[in-house]
Amino acid sequence: MPDKILRMARSDASTPRRPVMLAIAGDSAAGKTTLTKGLVEALGEDRCTSICADDYHAYDRVERKELPFTPLHPDCNYLDIMEQHLQLLAMGRPILKPVYNHATGTLDRPEYVEPKEFVIVEGLHPLSTKLSRACFDVTVFLDPPEEIRHQWKVQRDTAKRGYTAEQVVADLVRREPESAAYIRPQRRYADIVARFAPIESRNDPPGTPLSAELLLRPTIQHPSLSSVLTDDHRTAMHLKIMRDADGTPTDCLHVHGHASTEEARQLEKTIWAELEEDGGPPDSLGRITDDQRSEPLALTQLILLYHLLAAQGSER
Amino acid sequence: MPDKILRMARSDASTPRRPVMLAIAGDSAAGKTTLTKGLVEALGEDRCTSICADDYHAYDRVERKELPFTPLHPDCNYLDIMEQHLQLLAMGRPILKPVYNHATGTLDRPEYVEPKEFVIVEGLHPLSTKLSRACFDVTVFLDPPEEIRHQWKVQRDTAKRGYTAEQVVADLVRREPESAAYIRPQRRYADIVARFAPIESRNDPPGTPLSAELLLRPTIQHPSLSSVLTDDHRTAMHLKIMRDADGTPTDCLHVHGHASTEEARQLEKTIWAELEEDGGPPDSLGRITDDQRSEPLALTQLILLYHLLAAQGSER
Repeated sequence: MPDKILRMARSDASTPRRPVMLAIAGDSAAGKTTLTKGLVEALGEDRCTSICADDYHAYDRVERKELPFTPLHPDCNYLDIMEQHLQLLAMGRPILKPVYNHATGTLDRPEYVEPKEFVIVEGLHPLSTKLSRACFDVTVFLDPPEEIRHQWKVQRDTAKRGYTAEQVVADLVRREPESAAYIRPQRRYADIVARFAPIESRNDPPGTPLSAELLLRPTIQHPSLSSVLTDDHRTAMHLKIMRDADGTPTDCLHVHGHASTEEARQLEKTIWAELEEDGGPPDSLGRITDDQRSEPLALTQLILLYHLLAAQGSER
Repeated sequence: MPDKILRMARSDASTPRRPVMLAIAGDSAAGKTTLTKGLVEALGEDRCTSICADDYHAYDRVERKELPFTPLHPDCNYLDIMEQHLQLLAMGRPILKPVYNHATGTLDRPEYVEPKEFVIVEGLHPLSTKLSRACFDVTVFLDPPEEIRHQWKVQRDTAKRGYTAEQVVADLVRREPESAAYIRPQRRYADIVARFAPIESRNDPPGTPLSAELLLRPTIQHPSLSSVLTDDHRTAMHLKIMRDADGTPTDCLHVHGHASTEEARQLEKTIWAELEEDGGPPDSLGRITDDQRSEPLALTQLILLYHLLAAQGSER
């Protein structure tokens, strides 16, 4: 009998184009969807596929009531299937993706998903295994302070997912040990850690845009910003080298919420100029809602966009 | 940036045991489920995974009403995903298999399926592409005469799927061009073609068990039956060499419906003796319903069982 593996390899000679893969990991309500939306819009839906890794939940909401763990627990998800689908997408193959319906809490009919030029995978666990991490060109972890994330989660889950504020708070308490055990450890595997937060030393009035602190780790080659930015803490934007938790030197970009649009735009142009792309940075970056914008968010997205386009250039 | 493919390969070092894969292809109501059931029972559910390739339907029953083709058409199915899942199963990997609910006509929540020692894949299209065929160790096509299949389909679809006889007949007419174009061509890719039918030259009374005509093609090594069977047409069981449609020499085993249980059992023992298995052929073979048995079916299943067990032996 001829060897089956060889036979399969011979029959599967097509080599589809491989997409550039970006992971956006973070806890529930850390801002993953907002970050993703701006990028998809900037690239265009015809060039960019985005999927949510939470669709790999193994149990529906009713079944979970009987279980001793929350969706943050690996055992509550088909992480092996997630890995498999990430590999397939990274190889340019389509997948039949499961669908978790956040509104009803049910597992619905799966969706046929084909990878376009860029694939953005956001979710609770995209960086949780060695194999899943290997599938990405660029990895991000969203790391807001817990009190900010809790506010965001209450806001969203009461408005969009039919929970009461009390239920959301109780849920956050129940999830905390699993956040600590399974979500936050992914932070160490990200090329970029983004933290949106007020600046602790300042007493900005409510409504001041959040600042961004971006850890730009040397695991990938970032656009060179040191020529335009200094490590002077008195300015609204500064770049500083520091030691990461494990001692590795790393860059940390601070963009203050009160930085002027002009300042931010100047930096955006510097980053954009390193790419050989027509026009300027897309206007869609930085949008939070239809009438709310954030320059720190725009800059974060621009740096990601830089990486996506640069990775695509390098693979062709 | 290190090469993503290499990185994925390095992270995915586990090599699960590969199962023996059997395809049972054939048109709607050709007897695929009956054949499969007896095999699964003989092997035991702890050793055997069976899946239905019709679960890869791309549209539900309501959507299909608007479409110009039937489920027999490749475009009505995610055959690329079917291929992918067959490859994964053949490599010993789990899949998240879509589920088509025949009772309601809806596409339901997918199922996590892990390949056990043996995987049986029955359906309309398992042999329809080169890559899908490459995934199997043994392939079967069920080829009953059309009038028999039509009777079976009316019986089943009125009893189990909520259709009227008129609807089933209209459906058969509508499906015929696609049966001819997409289902029957798979016959030529099977290692074994099984035809259950009355013997044309005899005028057996209704209720006589159907006979089996098994084309045992030289694409795999069959148990040697020529020592116990002759090509004498006067006996209830005979083995004959003939030319296949393309001129290749092939074996054809005839088992008449009126063959005695003793005769059939003798042949079953001969086949079984070629395997180094304990005990005799499993009793579950040949069961059609709880109170209906067929020796020709039992023999067909036994030959398949022989191949499954032999393939497993050869791969270890």
